[in-house]
Amino acid sequence: MIDPRVASGLRDLPPSLAIPREHLATVFRGVFARAGFVPIETPHIERLEVLTGKGAGSEEVLRQIFDVTNKGGKPGELALRFDLTVPLARFIAKHVDTVGVPFKRYAIGSVFRGERPAKGRFREFTQCDVDIVGVDGPLADAEAVLAIHDALKAAGIPPFRIKLNHRAILDGLLETLGASERLPAVLRSLDKLDKIGRDKVIEELTGVRRRPEGQGESDAAAPCSPPEETECEPVLTPEQAARVLNFAEKGRGGLEVLDLAKIDPEAAAHPKAIAGVERLRQVVELAQAGGADPERIGVDLGLARGLDYYTGIILETVVLGWERFGSVASGGRYDNLAGLFTSRRLPGVGASIGLDRLLALLEEAGTLETRGTIAPVLVTWFPGVPGAVPLGLAARLRAVGVGAEVYPEPIAVGKQMGYGSQRGHRLGLIVGPDEVAARVFNLRDLASRDELKAIPWDRLESTIQHRLNLSEGAPA
Amino acid sequence: MIDPRVASGLRDLPPSLAIPREHLATVFRGVFARAGFVPIETPHIERLEVLTGKGAGSEEVLRQIFDVTNKGGKPGELALRFDLTVPLARFIAKHVDTVGVPFKRYAIGSVFRGERPAKGRFREFTQCDVDIVGVDGPLADAEAVLAIHDALKAAGIPPFRIKLNHRAILDGLLETLGASERLPAVLRSLDKLDKIGRDKVIEELTGVRRRPEGQGESDAAAPCSPPEETECEPVLTPEQAARVLNFAEKGRGGLEVLDLAKIDPEAAAHPKAIAGVERLRQVVELAQAGGADPERIGVDLGLARGLDYYTGIILETVVLGWERFGSVASGGRYDNLAGLFTSRRLPGVGASIGLDRLLALLEEAGTLETRGTIAPVLVTWFPGVPGAVPLGLAARLRAVGVGAEVYPEPIAVGKQMGYGSQRGHRLGLIVGPDEVAARVFNLRDLASRDELKAIPWDRLESTIQHRLNLSEGAPA
Repeated sequence: MIDPRVASGLRDLPPSLAIPREHLATVFRGVFARAGFVPIETPHIERLEVLTGKGAGSEEVLRQIFDVTNKGGKPGELALRFDLTVPLARFIAKHVDTVGVPFKRYAIGSVFRGERPAKGRFREFTQCDVDIVGVDGPLADAEAVLAIHDALKAAGIPPFRIKLNHRAILDGLLETLGASERLPAVLRSLDKLDKIGRDKVIEELTGVRRRPEGQGESDAAAPCSPPEETECEPVLTPEQAARVLNFAEKGRGGLEVLDLAKIDPEAAAHPKAIAGVERLRQVVELAQAGGADPERIGVDLGLARGLDYYTGIILETVVLGWERFGSVASGGRYDNLAGLFTSRRLPGVGASIGLDRLLALLEEAGTLETRGTIAPVLVTWFPGVPGAVPLGLAARLRAVGVGAEVYPEPIAVGKQMGYGSQRGHRLGLIVGPDEVAARVFNLRDLASRDELKAIPWDRLESTIQHRLNLSEGAPA
Repeated sequence: MIDPRVASGLRDLPPSLAIPREHLATVFRGVFARAGFVPIETPHIERLEVLTGKGAGSEEVLRQIFDVTNKGGKPGELALRFDLTVPLARFIAKHVDTVGVPFKRYAIGSVFRGERPAKGRFREFTQCDVDIVGVDGPLADAEAVLAIHDALKAAGIPPFRIKLNHRAILDGLLETLGASERLPAVLRSLDKLDKIGRDKVIEELTGVRRRPEGQGESDAAAPCSPPEETECEPVLTPEQAARVLNFAEKGRGGLEVLDLAKIDPEAAAHPKAIAGVERLRQVVELAQAGGADPERIGVDLGLARGLDYYTGIILETVVLGWERFGSVASGGRYDNLAGLFTSRRLPGVGASIGLDRLLALLEEAGTLETRGTIAPVLVTWFPGVPGAVPLGLAARLRAVGVGAEVYPEPIAVGKQMGYGSQRGHRLGLIVGPDEVAARVFNLRDLASRDELKAIPWDRLESTIQHRLNLSEGAPA
């Protein structure tokens, strides 16, 4: 006997989770399509060299790649994709002459990362991406923000906030501090602000650091320059660190925080910061013109994650009260999306919803309706009734768009009803030999246990639709 | 620069194919759900031992498995699934106590086989499966048939025919011939009847065969018994072969061919054949009671593929006139679905639609509508118009469920319209500075080039919905 477990870090989704997950994906697809995005499909398997090109993924992600080998094939040639952005870059480089730009695509698919298994972290997870390729302007940025906003809103996600920043603003600040080359280290520390707090971040930025042995440049909290030293200067002076922290802390809010002069007059006068602020203001205003709720779109000038690979706006999204789940939707703008694969400059802006993280959050928040059925009606039948009767009645309901499951065997009707109650069917239709003779059926409300008797078959569709409308209006 | 090609045997789907493919999957999901099936999700990656258990896949399929290795992981532990049935068997063995039986699940997902790349054959393809687990009766068989019938019909697939057979019928025939042990070889030859014709099949069944060198037992057209011989007896005598061929050829049609006595009186009297015929008749009658068109459900007593692993009914589906594409939907019944993983006997019946094969067929048949957009409306805007105007108009359309793409930059309006014509938008909405001042828009029908001028903004939704209804009614 073979153990039916899944491999470490992977999981099965039973119907109670797969149903709401599929519902979310369907809602997202509808929103994306209505906004003019179109789907593409790329293989789960890519050539390894496509995934490991310089800048395709962070060192951490590259260490997590799953290699794929065909029987008889050579190892090291194929791998599973770790996101949907690198495949998009490859796709557009290959197909740009036929699909053209601007190109607005969405994709919902599994990606794979061999992360250390942990609660809520899976080695296969689903991303829901939108991207607009080939356009530099702010309206494309706003459309990416709107796609996330409209998708989460349409899916009934609890109050969320999309936080926006622009890379040029922090660039400008660091330049006024004369610390441009320290940007990566500053970003890494700032990224931890919510988690470790102000004091720890300042300590990290201003302390003399010993690089942990055996750890590469990219992982050091405060990389040394020159890199061959193991003990190195602090990232920032205490004065610089104070200004960075002040900037990050006061730079959270609505459009009003874009009045940078009130936060850091010197940075506010820097040309890069001015340009970044102007762009961010345009994006927020356009998103609002496109229907975004003002309270769901915010500015966060300390938002740092991803700033080292994005070149324009960046965004993250938290569900209020559930910040510890991290960002459920993130993205930003690239100057040159497909530079690994083509000499043609193709700017891009996009965002990605983490479907599994969102589902885990909703599950924990208790807002998931976790039924074991989609069809609201269960047709039950007594022994002695020909199967053609329940199947014929169900077919009539299915034909008018009402989900109707037939219990597949005429076991005791009480057991059939028990199955329906457990799965979450709303209505149980009952036909016994007497009902067949009289061409009627009985109908039980599986929540209230009320039963209507002897409804004629010719009133099947109207009766069921009426009862379902009633029970939909009722509290679940 | 990295070559942006996909690996051998894989492919990208541009929007013109991904849009209809996604539409098919959505239609299938809706049909399956209305019939009481529920989705589950299992990982693309399974433990290798799960996939290679005895009987999980044919030798051919096992040779095609893609191995998966995590960085630092051991090779030979993980692999990509090659179908959705083995994962279902593992799932139900693991979760049967929580999900219970009967269990009716659907799953739509990618599977992977390292087949020799060839036209129309891909190493990653999508299966759309329905299965009913835990029930022996004929109504479950009929529901599997109905799911395929209703899904293909709802998707507007050209006239198709679901062909049914039952394993016990051919078992009975072979037993009356005293040739039971030759069943696998007979099935392999019969399976080629349409392709190579009657004479070649008879030749194959009755000739003395030399086993091709270096080929294993499973691939030989007529395996020897004992297997160590390389030259061996014919599979059948000429008389036996004639009866088998007669059976297969006369056994095609509707319910009338189940009157076996007219085809082969001796086989018709065999208890196994009697039982198989009775079951097949029940299944066809139930499927018709459930709404199946009689001309779309047929009997084919020579249908052989899969009979060596199914234990009850089997089914295949051809699109009439496109038989050379092979079966677009196949399935059957297993006595014991999950025997590899649990000692609990769990019968199952299911069927699987090959989404990529179906898509390739529709593409070649010219029945695919291959637009480059889902949204029917393109909003275009002149330089000098604030982006908030087109985005605001689009948002109003999106809010009432009308897909509206905003061209992301105010380039020359003619170019924006060219983009719309090329992608297949139906209507182009135009706002220039004059229209903004007057709070109106112009509307161009991108097919007819007719243009309505100066429509007030407050008539946006009603005008667009009216025009779209008109253009939907018009020939495409």
